[in-house]
Amino acid sequence: MKILILSANDFEDMELFVPYYRFKEEGFAVDVASKKRQTLEGRHDYEIEANRAFDEINPEEYDMLFLPGGKAPAKVRKEDSALQIVRHFIDKNKPIVTICHGPQIMISAGVVHGRHMTCWPEVSKELKEAGAIYEDKEVVVDGNIVSSRMASDLPLFLREVMKKATATV
Amino acid sequence: MKILILSANDFEDMELFVPYYRFKEEGFAVDVASKKRQTLEGRHDYEIEANRAFDEINPEEYDMLFLPGGKAPAKVRKEDSALQIVRHFIDKNKPIVTICHGPQIMISAGVVHGRHMTCWPEVSKELKEAGAIYEDKEVVVDGNIVSSRMASDLPLFLREVMKKATATV
Repeated sequence: MKILILSANDFEDMELFVPYYRFKEEGFAVDVASKKRQTLEGRHDYEIEANRAFDEINPEEYDMLFLPGGKAPAKVRKEDSALQIVRHFIDKNKPIVTICHGPQIMISAGVVHGRHMTCWPEVSKELKEAGAIYEDKEVVVDGNIVSSRMASDLPLFLREVMKKATATV
Repeated sequence: MKILILSANDFEDMELFVPYYRFKEEGFAVDVASKKRQTLEGRHDYEIEANRAFDEINPEEYDMLFLPGGKAPAKVRKEDSALQIVRHFIDKNKPIVTICHGPQIMISAGVVHGRHMTCWPEVSKELKEAGAIYEDKEVVVDGNIVSSRMASDLPLFLREVMKKATATV
């Protein structure tokens, strides 16, 4: 199992690191990609190394895509190379798991229409306008998409994410 | 499985929350105790509710004790009611899992002599002086005690912690 995380500076620290450490606990390989290779700083001052740039990613190599939240998705959604990666996972029906503001990237990639999803409350209007079926629940699973609202949803989010991960192995 | 966390203000956010969410993912019950019931603030500004005071804890009710790090253990170690809780887990041979500065509480409880343990590098001198056999490893397991050094050890720490938790259930 190889997982790709797309993020940028001002990521929501807990939402990135709790799944990141969970994946590592399970022995999964994890790459973190950003616009360029760099040290990313979270909103709460934790740091993580982006060991890949978006434009060097071959999405065929990855089994699952994780889009964490914070203010990072507002930056990631502007990068066409990141949106191409998202579309690959939709086209191939591979798991995309996302929390908080992460769905903004999926909105910009044009892949949420008709999909049951949740997100950070303030993103819900935009998500609905893009044609998603918004549900205010801790976690929503629709086929290959798992979405949650906020850090306190992480336990239920990760239960569903780990089901997808182990089903994919 | 019911887990007790002892902490205070200035806890290390990631070290407390990553295991906390992991326990919740697994469906374990978790109580957080501090000197009094209060909202605790971490060094990185995350907050958690201490829903119990040390002196209202009946340690018989809990299967595992978790002592996270940060500057909180320097406060917790001064509370005799907290040290009594630690001694209960040692006396009953129930799992105590700890990371970073957490072992300071065990030092003050007088329970580390002859035990293989690790901790935050700067705590190692004090740990050795208290008679522990210090090892600079990501995770050290000695009977009912599991210890790690820092947040980046969390994946291996939690692998061992979850083994203890599932063995205890």
